[in-house]
Amino acid sequence: MAATQFHHDESLLDLIDRVGDLKFLPRTGWLLAGVTGAESVADHSCGVALIALFLAETINADWTAQGIDEPLRVDQVMALALIHDLAESLLTDLPRRSSSLLGESVKHSVETQAMHEILDHLPNGAYYHNLWQSYNTASTPEARLIKDVDKLEMAAQALRYAQRGHRNLQEFWQGRHWHYPISQSLFEQLLRRHLPDAL
Amino acid sequence: MAATQFHHDESLLDLIDRVGDLKFLPRTGWLLAGVTGAESVADHSCGVALIALFLAETINADWTAQGIDEPLRVDQVMALALIHDLAESLLTDLPRRSSSLLGESVKHSVETQAMHEILDHLPNGAYYHNLWQSYNTASTPEARLIKDVDKLEMAAQALRYAQRGHRNLQEFWQGRHWHYPISQSLFEQLLRRHLPDAL
Amino acid sequence: MAATQFHHDESLLDLIDRVGDLKFLPRTGWLLAGVTGAESVADHSCGVALIALFLAETINADWTAQGIDEPLRVDQVMALALIHDLAESLLTDLPRRSSSLLGESVKHSVETQAMHEILDHLPNGAYYHNLWQSYNTASTPEARLIKDVDKLEMAAQALRYAQRGHRNLQEFWQGRHWHYPISQSLFEQLLRRHLPDAL
Amino acid sequence: MAATQFHHDESLLDLIDRVGDLKFLPRTGWLLAGVTGAESVADHSCGVALIALFLAETINADWTAQGIDEPLRVDQVMALALIHDLAESLLTDLPRRSSSLLGESVKHSVETQAMHEILDHLPNGAYYHNLWQSYNTASTPEARLIKDVDKLEMAAQALRYAQRGHRNLQEFWQGRHWHYPISQSLFEQLLRRHLPDAL
Amino acid sequence: MAATQFHHDESLLDLIDRVGDLKFLPRTGWLLAGVTGAESVADHSCGVALIALFLAETINADWTAQGIDEPLRVDQVMALALIHDLAESLLTDLPRRSSSLLGESVKHSVETQAMHEILDHLPNGAYYHNLWQSYNTASTPEARLIKDVDKLEMAAQALRYAQRGHRNLQEFWQGRHWHYPISQSLFEQLLRRHLPDAL
Amino acid sequence: MAATQFHHDESLLDLIDRVGDLKFLPRTGWLLAGVTGAESVADHSCGVALIALFLAETINADWTAQGIDEPLRVDQVMALALIHDLAESLLTDLPRRSSSLLGESVKHSVETQAMHEILDHLPNGAYYHNLWQSYNTASTPEARLIKDVDKLEMAAQALRYAQRGHRNLQEFWQGRHWHYPISQSLFEQLLRRHLPDAL
Repeated sequence: MAATQFHHDESLLDLIDRVGDLKFLPRTGWLLAGVTGAESVADHSCGVALIALFLAETINADWTAQGIDEPLRVDQVMALALIHDLAESLLTDLPRRSSSLLGESVKHSVETQAMHEILDHLPNGAYYHNLWQSYNTASTPEARLIKDVDKLEMAAQALRYAQRGHRNLQEFWQGRHWHYPISQSLFEQLLRRHLPDAL
Repeated sequence: MAATQFHHDESLLDLIDRVGDLKFLPRTGWLLAGVTGAESVADHSCGVALIALFLAETINADWTAQGIDEPLRVDQVMALALIHDLAESLLTDLPRRSSSLLGESVKHSVETQAMHEILDHLPNGAYYHNLWQSYNTASTPEARLIKDVDKLEMAAQALRYAQRGHRNLQEFWQGRHWHYPISQSLFEQLLRRHLPDAL
Repeated sequence: MAATQFHHDESLLDLIDRVGDLKFLPRTGWLLAGVTGAESVADHSCGVALIALFLAETINADWTAQGIDEPLRVDQVMALALIHDLAESLLTDLPRRSSSLLGESVKHSVETQAMHEILDHLPNGAYYHNLWQSYNTASTPEARLIKDVDKLEMAAQALRYAQRGHRNLQEFWQGRHWHYPISQSLFEQLLRRHLPDAL
Repeated sequence: MAATQFHHDESLLDLIDRVGDLKFLPRTGWLLAGVTGAESVADHSCGVALIALFLAETINADWTAQGIDEPLRVDQVMALALIHDLAESLLTDLPRRSSSLLGESVKHSVETQAMHEILDHLPNGAYYHNLWQSYNTASTPEARLIKDVDKLEMAAQALRYAQRGHRNLQEFWQGRHWHYPISQSLFEQLLRRHLPDAL
Repeated sequence: MAATQFHHDESLLDLIDRVGDLKFLPRTGWLLAGVTGAESVADHSCGVALIALFLAETINADWTAQGIDEPLRVDQVMALALIHDLAESLLTDLPRRSSSLLGESVKHSVETQAMHEILDHLPNGAYYHNLWQSYNTASTPEARLIKDVDKLEMAAQALRYAQRGHRNLQEFWQGRHWHYPISQSLFEQLLRRHLPDAL
Repeated sequence: MAATQFHHDESLLDLIDRVGDLKFLPRTGWLLAGVTGAESVADHSCGVALIALFLAETINADWTAQGIDEPLRVDQVMALALIHDLAESLLTDLPRRSSSLLGESVKHSVETQAMHEILDHLPNGAYYHNLWQSYNTASTPEARLIKDVDKLEMAAQALRYAQRGHRNLQEFWQGRHWHYPISQSLFEQLLRRHLPDAL
């Protein structure tokens, strides 16, 4: 077996372990709000990917109306969704107050290290690392879509927990800003469908 | 709002509800084996998508060695992974014995209905419906990859539960057949890493 | 050991396995409504049996007032309660939308197969199979009582979850029709006790 | 509404609350052994009732071989199974070490009070109270059968948890004594099926 | 090894087992109210100890204002908090209705036995046994503080569950009486912070 | 109300919120090992405090034999145990690999900030902050005892999970170094009692 092949295989096995971590780790924000049976990071990533896929298709059906210069690259949309929280498999999901104690730059630095550790020996790893960096800087239309869907998916989950009775989750859907008009429109329809009292 | 747009939006909201279902539904095979805190269908789909993405990249780095005529279309790989169990959001995850009482053709028929219900009003819905049918018939190299990863990911999860102590999960990794040589090789390395006694 | 005895023993051991399945399987309707720690099918069956036992005794204390021609056979009431969801040990609990995709006749057919598989080699299996069929057709006063208690017990559980805060469970107690006047009366008193705002 | 009817209705509503308690209360022995997702008291009662029903039918198919003078009364078997742990809905499931600190007679006395509170206003309550007392004294063939099935069902559940990996549950199946030869035989076959190493 | 040392070691190992019990045992009152993922007895004890520590420091900063003759002994406050529910490691957490069926004197007697079993061979065991008896009789300022914090901590937890949506927990915070003015003041501020509608 | 009193009260209410966080947050190391129903940080803190209390008493009964110059201050032992992980209420429990990506000094710095935020307005807050710093530097006999008990308690919990079947927890008890001879002795006896195969 060639050395490169060996590294790829080891890295794929490591990736499979990271997938296990994403399933075992609950989203910390829900825990601190007292949610039981909180969704995993993997649950959230799956949700973001599915929603982003069909939201991208919706945008592409009439992309000029959403203020972009060319159709979204759907493969990048899906890949970004799948890896946007992958660093959490090593770092766990740090809640907002933990991040603010760490500071944005320290947080970004450890996440970058984590992503190097996960991706560097994977085939095309550098490409996906750069893609992930584009997410952090919201520097492409695809990255901005995932920023929107990350918040939209979290709001949808918060509304599901609100249906269970939770009264302390407003922070998870209030005061959101959106890159795409359709994200805002979907969000408002979502609120109307699941929490009409909130409007 | 045009009628089509309205249908798209309603269908996107419905899709967000389906995502919630995938998170709330545990994989039934684990339940029947007595697993507590069993992964959700969404957990599994996320795992399949992440592993399939990088396994496809690995194959594409040297695709002739894996017996295919052209590189895998990575966008199809990801999309297939994300939707391969989407019908379960309406039907729940029917365990093997339940499926065998139903019969393959009845099962396929209700899954097809469910996928129509989920996808028909989504943009490009017909494209994704056909993609999903290709998965059922394993008729493309991408579909065959997802068939492999579906089993590989399940085996990896079974090995995680075996690390917890479960002694009755052999059926989840034994007797697997693989479309790609690299799937088989990864599977064997996985067993060696996590359950060396099993070899 | 005679062949019949052997079959009985194997079938009793299989039945003990089915009991394990009923304990491990959550009621799917609750899962889809986002309930955590959802009751098992066995929990529900126990509840139906206990309530049906004492409701039957109540009816029998003044059976003419409930519009029946002779007292209820309490042994049938209990047996029906215990086996009414036994097919779910093989098939899992199919939620309403799953059943409606399958269609009533397909669903009944697979349940019948499942019940044959479970009961056929048990002593008096045919008797209990017929008893279970009487439940499906609501063809006896005892079967009609279990139909009522199945709904009453589900409503009581929905009200417990509503006490936890769930706001989306109305479908589990609304629009019920009752075979016995006392079922309706009990249901209304139950609502009054646990959810006075609903009235 | 006559006063008796009123008491019956209130008592039936209270009974429905007791059913809720039986579902919410885990079996304490499992908790102390570190079992997660431990079965409820209702789970266990359902299991005892189902197994006892078909074990009674098996015995009745050849009752002289089991050393009894007449066939078992199957209605009593089911009723006993359903109420044998009903006092726990008020008292919770006291583990063995708790019971031995209390002493047998104190424990029996509070259970008796609890059963009076639950049953006294139910129709035929006195009959079921006496039936339950026959269980405590193992004074009838039906009561002795439930004594056997109570242990058999617990052993079966312990074996399910042992399949999950638990190594500290031997006390839940070792050193059992049986009233009926068929109970012992079933127990041995159960061990052989699920824990062949234990023999 | 001297015999005394041996007893100490065995008792310390037993104590470590008791700690495990306190972690595995949920607080029963929450279970009966339908709470999922209910806190453990150890969770509660930790909460009581932390709150009592800083409440004692607050009182000691101006102890004459709280009507005591000398500052609270903070070491006793912490020790009392840690052992006040230690008997539950052997007896489990008996809910109020169970205690009232047992009667206060029987309950106190079995708890005393349990505490003897746990503490007698530990170093200074008699001192801690007496300390625990002072808690039962509320005979010292430190004991009365723990009485207050036991209720305050339970109310705080009930309010957390009320934030989850629970509507049936008023009994856990209503009608409390307090030994210290500051306990009452804190309790009222707690209600105002977490459940303003309740005031 | 004087300004200082107001700050104390607000800080006590905040502390009560921090207690809630410690209960809701699972220990992350267990999650990543696949443990379900993992203990909370509060569970662990309670265990450390109870064990440390009686281990300190044991040491004090013959303190010269443990190489210290004067008896342990038991009040400091308990207070240290209760606050040693208190920063996690704001930061969550960072697993080892997360800490090593952050680096020791960054981690210590954010924990120090968190402890300032929690303690600064509490009465005697500076004293407890200094006490907590002594834990980080292991600069007192009491701090070193808590270092030992922190590891001992974790090992005990790992052994409980190993009793459940977990096969991948050796890292939680292997290669430990102890400040006190009695800690090592207790640890060895603990292994002998609960995992004799490991020796």
